Amino acid sequence: MLDIETPALVVDLARLTSNVAAMADVARGKAVDLRPHAKTHKSIQIANLQIGAGAVGITVATVSEAEAFAHHGVDDILIAYPILPLGGKAKRFRELVDRVRLRVGVDSAAGASAVAEAADGRDVSVLIEIDSGQHRTGVPAAEAAALAAQCRRAGLTVEGVFTHGGHAYSGPDAPAGAGMDEGDQLALAARALRDAGFVISVVSAGSTPTWRSPRPPEVTEERPGTYVFGDRQQVALGAQDPGDCAAWIAATVVSVRGGRIVIDAGSKTLTGERPGWLDGYGIVPELGNAVITRVSEHHGILDDVDTSDVCVGDMVSVIPNHICTAVNLFDEYVVVEDGRVVDRWELIARGKNV
Amino acid sequence: MLDIETPALVVDLARLTSNVAAMADVARGKAVDLRPHAKTHKSIQIANLQIGAGAVGITVATVSEAEAFAHHGVDDILIAYPILPLGGKAKRFRELVDRVRLRVGVDSAAGASAVAEAADGRDVSVLIEIDSGQHRTGVPAAEAAALAAQCRRAGLTVEGVFTHGGHAYSGPDAPAGAGMDEGDQLALAARALRDAGFVISVVSAGSTPTWRSPRPPEVTEERPGTYVFGDRQQVALGAQDPGDCAAWIAATVVSVRGGRIVIDAGSKTLTGERPGWLDGYGIVPELGNAVITRVSEHHGILDDVDTSDVCVGDMVSVIPNHICTAVNLFDEYVVVEDGRVVDRWELIARGKNV
Repeated sequence: MLDIETPALVVDLARLTSNVAAMADVARGKAVDLRPHAKTHKSIQIANLQIGAGAVGITVATVSEAEAFAHHGVDDILIAYPILPLGGKAKRFRELVDRVRLRVGVDSAAGASAVAEAADGRDVSVLIEIDSGQHRTGVPAAEAAALAAQCRRAGLTVEGVFTHGGHAYSGPDAPAGAGMDEGDQLALAARALRDAGFVISVVSAGSTPTWRSPRPPEVTEERPGTYVFGDRQQVALGAQDPGDCAAWIAATVVSVRGGRIVIDAGSKTLTGERPGWLDGYGIVPELGNAVITRVSEHHGILDDVDTSDVCVGDMVSVIPNHICTAVNLFDEYVVVEDGRVVDRWELIARGKNV
Repeated sequence: MLDIETPALVVDLARLTSNVAAMADVARGKAVDLRPHAKTHKSIQIANLQIGAGAVGITVATVSEAEAFAHHGVDDILIAYPILPLGGKAKRFRELVDRVRLRVGVDSAAGASAVAEAADGRDVSVLIEIDSGQHRTGVPAAEAAALAAQCRRAGLTVEGVFTHGGHAYSGPDAPAGAGMDEGDQLALAARALRDAGFVISVVSAGSTPTWRSPRPPEVTEERPGTYVFGDRQQVALGAQDPGDCAAWIAATVVSVRGGRIVIDAGSKTLTGERPGWLDGYGIVPELGNAVITRVSEHHGILDDVDTSDVCVGDMVSVIPNHICTAVNLFDEYVVVEDGRVVDRWELIARGKNV
């Protein structure tokens, strides 16, 4: 049993390193750039592992995430989000443009204008976000060239296109189709931009459930994030082997009574997230992958389980449904190797949503 | 429009103060002690408002929450949780016992032993947790006296009983019954302890959905938490008027397309929590209480809405489903009065889960 206080966020260094290396190998084999999404881990140590293994840089979702990693030396960053650097955010955005090689997402003329205005004359590189089927942000591939022209008129440099096939998360049968959609729509958009005279170098796809998808030759970059850790959802989607899960929440059994076990990890450590196609809020490997059936803020409840070998005070592990949002609830990783604590890593970008 | 960067956690000082005063008045009228649960706000300014209005102290869920408030001067704290001060937590627990008037929850003999061992000879006051129907932690009222005897044998001082009728959250029809259950089971447990010779002074009930319940005379204390802010869930449960919601997440529209609006607040600011009896993840008052139908980490998506008056760059407010877990995703409150920013308050207990 680890000598730590619970609840704690634990990362297994060997599995982490193995996941990082495996993805880097795949990217090399496919001859595409790997630009992992750092929103999953929010850790400079893990970003540096990824870059050391061959990643060309990182992906983030917000200006403040980019700032956190830039402050710690990462110098090539994509903000894969249609950012609006308004108000005080404009100054922070300019400082980032001056500091690192930055690309940002754009999905509207209004967004392009806001980015250009915030840049205040600086040269800013943008990627047009393509909606490949999730219907969240992004423009249809057929509208990419028109938006690129608007970006150019606003003074921005259009370096390419990107998409996230987030509809891969709609169920275990979804990743294959979503992965194909990503490739198809990116290829259409890339051709449309080239036909319109744009010289583009970045055609960026990706997510952990879709990176295995066959890609058209246009695709130059993959942006998976969750693969460094895996989680219950990725295992259910077929994107990760259970034995490769590299991060979990260590918790302590605080109550055992009549077929019910309660642990000290609830929605403030595991989150209360649950995809419609999964039951419960996480699984406990030490209890035969028993499911956490209910969560309160500081309680994870396992109903109708075999409690015969379980005592108050036992430490257990929880593989949460979604590791990215669970990680964001902690300030540090407890790093373990061969079952011993070897380090603690700060989450430098925890809560950096602005 | 507020001159702030989004996403941001906003609290309206007038509504907050009014909610705090109203609950204090009710407690005075019922002649019970008010010990609000500070897990909702994690703010010393708000705890001090509550104490200033007459609260006898605060309730928290963890040792580290208690430490945060003790460090800022709160000197009367109930940890309403069956804590296990094992390992490094034992030392922190002892320091807390030495520093403030502390009571902690117990729901098992093993828990009582752990608390007594950690106390290392210090006098520690405990409350027996009663399961009034949520079936989470706590013992049935009929077992309260036996557990109290075990606590006494372990060297602990049994000062009373407490319960949380969390089954009030199972739907809009649930609070009335759950509130009655709290009172009934507490009264049974209190009588059982007194019959067994225990002199108890604390019989503590409560939650925001149940505090309005008629209480038997045994009940001495109420512990509502969420009432300071309210949220979508409390409104749906009939526990809060929409106009009294005192906290929300300010967000910016980042994308508008074909009946769909996307804002920059997603599961990393609103949480991905959704009770089975509510659709979506929050509502936007400026858009006619339109529902956030989907969330990703940094996207809140409103599908099939009227977008005719909405532009990229507009700022909106989101009343999340559950304010307690949303608050925990932020480092500070933006405090507003008459629509102007008047202060910023740190969340001193954000992420204090250990």
